[in-house]
Amino acid sequence: MANKEVIPNTQVVAKHNVPGIPKETDFYVRNETIALELDQGSNSLLVKNLYLSCDPYMRGIKEQGVEEDRPSFFTPNSPVIGFGVSKVVESTKVGFEVGDLIWGMTGWEEYSVLTNTDRHFKINHTDVPLSYYTGLLGMPGLTAYAGFYEVCSPKKGEYVFVSSAFGAVGQLVGQFAKLMGCYVVGSAGTHDKVEQLKTKFGFDEAFNYKDEPDFDAALKRYFPKGIDIYFDNVGGKMLDAVLLNMRLHGRIAVAGMISQYNLDQPHGITNLMRIVFNQIRIQGFMVFDYYHLYPNFLDTILPYVRQGKIVYAEDITEGLETGPASLVSLFVGRTSGKPVILVSRD
Amino acid sequence: MANKEVIPNTQVVAKHNVPGIPKETDFYVRNETIALELDQGSNSLLVKNLYLSCDPYMRGIKEQGVEEDRPSFFTPNSPVIGFGVSKVVESTKVGFEVGDLIWGMTGWEEYSVLTNTDRHFKINHTDVPLSYYTGLLGMPGLTAYAGFYEVCSPKKGEYVFVSSAFGAVGQLVGQFAKLMGCYVVGSAGTHDKVEQLKTKFGFDEAFNYKDEPDFDAALKRYFPKGIDIYFDNVGGKMLDAVLLNMRLHGRIAVAGMISQYNLDQPHGITNLMRIVFNQIRIQGFMVFDYYHLYPNFLDTILPYVRQGKIVYAEDITEGLETGPASLVSLFVGRTSGKPVILVSRD
Repeated sequence: MANKEVIPNTQVVAKHNVPGIPKETDFYVRNETIALELDQGSNSLLVKNLYLSCDPYMRGIKEQGVEEDRPSFFTPNSPVIGFGVSKVVESTKVGFEVGDLIWGMTGWEEYSVLTNTDRHFKINHTDVPLSYYTGLLGMPGLTAYAGFYEVCSPKKGEYVFVSSAFGAVGQLVGQFAKLMGCYVVGSAGTHDKVEQLKTKFGFDEAFNYKDEPDFDAALKRYFPKGIDIYFDNVGGKMLDAVLLNMRLHGRIAVAGMISQYNLDQPHGITNLMRIVFNQIRIQGFMVFDYYHLYPNFLDTILPYVRQGKIVYAEDITEGLETGPASLVSLFVGRTSGKPVILVSRD
Repeated sequence: MANKEVIPNTQVVAKHNVPGIPKETDFYVRNETIALELDQGSNSLLVKNLYLSCDPYMRGIKEQGVEEDRPSFFTPNSPVIGFGVSKVVESTKVGFEVGDLIWGMTGWEEYSVLTNTDRHFKINHTDVPLSYYTGLLGMPGLTAYAGFYEVCSPKKGEYVFVSSAFGAVGQLVGQFAKLMGCYVVGSAGTHDKVEQLKTKFGFDEAFNYKDEPDFDAALKRYFPKGIDIYFDNVGGKMLDAVLLNMRLHGRIAVAGMISQYNLDQPHGITNLMRIVFNQIRIQGFMVFDYYHLYPNFLDTILPYVRQGKIVYAEDITEGLETGPASLVSLFVGRTSGKPVILVSRD
């Protein structure tokens, strides 16, 4: 144990519990050190982190009268936890070699020791940007793929609505729906995002929900014949309005309800009766249930990405110290694409 | 046309629109006549009605700001419409003979002319009570069968909750769940119904929801490990409490939301976020989508009924004139079984 090489390891650390939407002042950067060696038989990986991902589910979630039982991404005085792209520096795990590129959960630091790597994937295709494995080709991409193809059971010609459509998942759901021959409308929170949805991502229509005092009226304008599929990222008032506009046998995939996570009292959904009259299915889902589809997903999406038929927007900032600001930008809607932190190019 | 035999035809008729829960005074009995002959080529049936069914969906439904587009069972100055068991007296429809017994939609009158018989089934098994084809062996039975086996995807040992469990559908869902080896709890609105659920219908537990100020606490008492399957007939507050108690990958089949149909403002469901965290599926369904399963359903259930392994409670009143009171009894919970009107024994 005496011969381990010890090197500096900068970290982004939570100062304290972060119960709601994170602020930059909830975090600080500290300079630690790390030994570049693993204990034999530890079945773990020592990795160098290259890209780190900022995702909506990283916020704390407040639920009235209910214990919080999700894993926390922000443990006081520990590095932030999140998805990332990393390079293996040492390995005591069978099947992983020094130099392998992987994606999965890691720490917001230069080097991490990963003891639980059951949900890490090796990266075999490096002709596309490595950072894409934090989004388009990683967990958000698989979320869009599983949510749309598996949960929504889409058919050509159907009417599809995507909320939070400029997000990493929403962008891709819309493009999958277009590839399938659906009519797709997305909602987002700035004029610029709305324009990009129409011009860059190929949505048939898009609207700024902040400009719509009456979501039901907005949806009736864009979907005069109703909605077959709703890919829900926000919940709340928008979901309630969508229920009034769902067609017979409609399907709602709920990937998240970000409008509701930090309210003292969630919006009460009053139109749920519609699910009986119109025989609607609502399915909450998490991507972990669909990890077995990752190879199929890559086989499907990589050719489209290489041909430019699926596009993707990232907002990459350089340096671990940009992490807190990058994360916060996600929650205030101040992004021009999926926020990614570049820690190291190799 | 001059030679048709014309005979009396007593009818139960709606006086006016019946927007909410029906009252006895919304109806009257009148004596009409009917010609016992059909026009050639009319592709219709003249039937003598034997048993008429009172079902929860027959009430009017009030939805805030939304047009009512369901078919009405109560058209002013016309006989009430509902499910029933009838005998064919004349037929101009291929495949239907005089003397055939059928079940499906008919009128609250002694004789009816049925012009749309696509959703009528012939009754081939008469060793069981004919009245059962308004319930256990008819539409409510098929609703329970399709809702439980098709929508809920049940597995042995799962925890099942049924609301409105003493209703024609609920009784049967509970018995199906027991046959599958599930743990089953039902809720009902009187002490007597609760007792019968436990003693006669074999539910593991049952409770009177009117005695429970806190549905969440009640559910936690009966389901300390949570609920895998909720067969929902009531919606509203109970559904909201159930959402707090659903297990991972739980399924909720919504056959109706009777607690909500006549409110000025529906109860706002605030716990829908749970469907994401616990990956829950909520499916609204109507039995018409599962009519193709009727033969399978009968093959499954008839042996159980003959062996007494599935039991059933009816509340039969005799005479068309008992119809309004029988119907009203359903909505005030004043029944000792599924309300059925005996019009004629043959």
